[in-house]
Amino acid sequence: MEIISLLISRGFFGSITFAVLMKKIVVIGGGTGTYQVLTGLKKYPFDISVVISMCDSGGSTGRLRKELGILPPGDVRRAILALSDLPFAHKTLNEVFNFRFTGDGSLAGHSLGNILLAALVQITGSMDKAIEEAAKILNASGKVYPVTLDKSNLVAVLTDGTRIHGETKIDRRSFKLKEKISSIYLTPKAKVFKEAANAIEVADLIVIGPGDLYTSLIPPLLVSGVTDAITKSKAKLVFIVNLVTKRGETDDFKASDFVSEIKKYLGSASNLLAYVIVNKKLNWPKSKLTSWYSRYGSLPVENDLNNRSSGFKVVESNFADKTTLFRHNPEKTAKAIVDLL
Amino acid sequence: MEIISLLISRGFFGSITFAVLMKKIVVIGGGTGTYQVLTGLKKYPFDISVVISMCDSGGSTGRLRKELGILPPGDVRRAILALSDLPFAHKTLNEVFNFRFTGDGSLAGHSLGNILLAALVQITGSMDKAIEEAAKILNASGKVYPVTLDKSNLVAVLTDGTRIHGETKIDRRSFKLKEKISSIYLTPKAKVFKEAANAIEVADLIVIGPGDLYTSLIPPLLVSGVTDAITKSKAKLVFIVNLVTKRGETDDFKASDFVSEIKKYLGSASNLLAYVIVNKKLNWPKSKLTSWYSRYGSLPVENDLNNRSSGFKVVESNFADKTTLFRHNPEKTAKAIVDLL
Repeated sequence: MEIISLLISRGFFGSITFAVLMKKIVVIGGGTGTYQVLTGLKKYPFDISVVISMCDSGGSTGRLRKELGILPPGDVRRAILALSDLPFAHKTLNEVFNFRFTGDGSLAGHSLGNILLAALVQITGSMDKAIEEAAKILNASGKVYPVTLDKSNLVAVLTDGTRIHGETKIDRRSFKLKEKISSIYLTPKAKVFKEAANAIEVADLIVIGPGDLYTSLIPPLLVSGVTDAITKSKAKLVFIVNLVTKRGETDDFKASDFVSEIKKYLGSASNLLAYVIVNKKLNWPKSKLTSWYSRYGSLPVENDLNNRSSGFKVVESNFADKTTLFRHNPEKTAKAIVDLL
Repeated sequence: MEIISLLISRGFFGSITFAVLMKKIVVIGGGTGTYQVLTGLKKYPFDISVVISMCDSGGSTGRLRKELGILPPGDVRRAILALSDLPFAHKTLNEVFNFRFTGDGSLAGHSLGNILLAALVQITGSMDKAIEEAAKILNASGKVYPVTLDKSNLVAVLTDGTRIHGETKIDRRSFKLKEKISSIYLTPKAKVFKEAANAIEVADLIVIGPGDLYTSLIPPLLVSGVTDAITKSKAKLVFIVNLVTKRGETDDFKASDFVSEIKKYLGSASNLLAYVIVNKKLNWPKSKLTSWYSRYGSLPVENDLNNRSSGFKVVESNFADKTTLFRHNPEKTAKAIVDLL
């Protein structure tokens, strides 16, 4: 579907909507990787849905979860922001939604978008309705669904049998770093939110990644009903491999390790894996940036995949943006996805 | 100007704007009295400005003032809400702006609108710009100005010489109730915000009241430059007398006491006082509502004014709404104001 990117680049889609023709893309995840992908995809005339992981437990999100008993708002906030498409006069709303209080005092560390979502949960009575209202306020060009409305926590089992409870503790593990994560599960079990399942079932293309493997990408797959919905969909499934490894989660992982772990949790839905988008190994000269990553145990992911390896096609290119951190460039990544349709 | 209320009632002003012809009304105050007046006035095709008292120090507002070093957002929030004119699909924004967190935790007691304004102060760099952005987001049909950008506190001097520092302490005084407030001042001195002064100077009609006399209505008049701006305006000045007295502020006050106190603080601008709107004495049969008021030391204000009393005209009617509390009915009050133009 090269033609679509061509037409886009020529401004062909100005204000036209293809309600019927529009392909349905579902992005599953949370976190900054999903943010980058959505930021790129929203410029195309697709029917975009995002299914958000609901086990975040850290920072402002974690405090609101604990204090107000709500589902975690952080990843939802990021997804809505990525899809937000406000006229210039209302751009401040965007800044407001992304604002974080600093200093001391009762609001310190809180994200205003999280606070807003917390209020909307209380006003509307549920996280899904709160998301709907926030998406309307920020004029999101796509639907955002929580993967589940059940409150659940992530548990990681290490190779020596140690269990780590809670997403943040897994995310920021600083102990037993030699032990790998051998498996991960949700407790109590969570059931898929019906509308999220519906969106997945009718998708033409499903995108997973990039993002923290065990704390952003696999958790939604652990929710009962999600892999079934993927299987039912008959969508093309695309997995985007991370640019760098993450200490305590994916140390020494090569592209094939990412793929085999995600396939493991996809279960029978792994047959749908049609494409793996992977970056050409990052340039890693000694610099402030690479030293920063190395200090936190992150190294470039090597691409050891090739097109003969298995049932999926490998799309390799240079997707990295080197800004303050290495991130997937939204435009390049979106174009690679769109070309698969 | 009876004709205007007539035309309004017939839906004459649909979507027409009279940019040039529009009369300029300025409401000075803060608190729920101002809210009621604005709610009624916004339905008329007038150019409405509100000049908001900036010495509130209690509750969520007080905490944000103290913790973030900002000007008090509470009365600003109420004024923007009163003027907000959102399409039905965005009504939730209104609820969001008015939402207050309950329970325990870091957000308990905070108004979300206050938090939003606090964030906007940090994003835009000042309270006046924050107000402008919030008014845009909530589609306020009028301008809201802080009376000053200077940080200042209210001090009340009682008849025995005792000084009470801070708006909330004056507002909720529970000691020395036999001593009246003999005078009130700001410390440090505050200078009028230029755009607020401009709005006042070009006004055709200025409305003061109803509201807490010493903690909402007089404070803006204490800001240096405000009474000068009123004098320059040559506007018709309207004062609206409260429905009930307030313990520790206006115990035993009759309508004439309200008028003479406000005239004292208007100084030379008191010559402009053209109309006093006063309620026919409230019905006060023994009921849950009247007992509640009596318990808090509030009694109906008696109208001892008559048209021969002095330089102003007395407009007496029944303006009270008996809902959960006695409040000025927005429509009746606005109509009485409009008829004076």
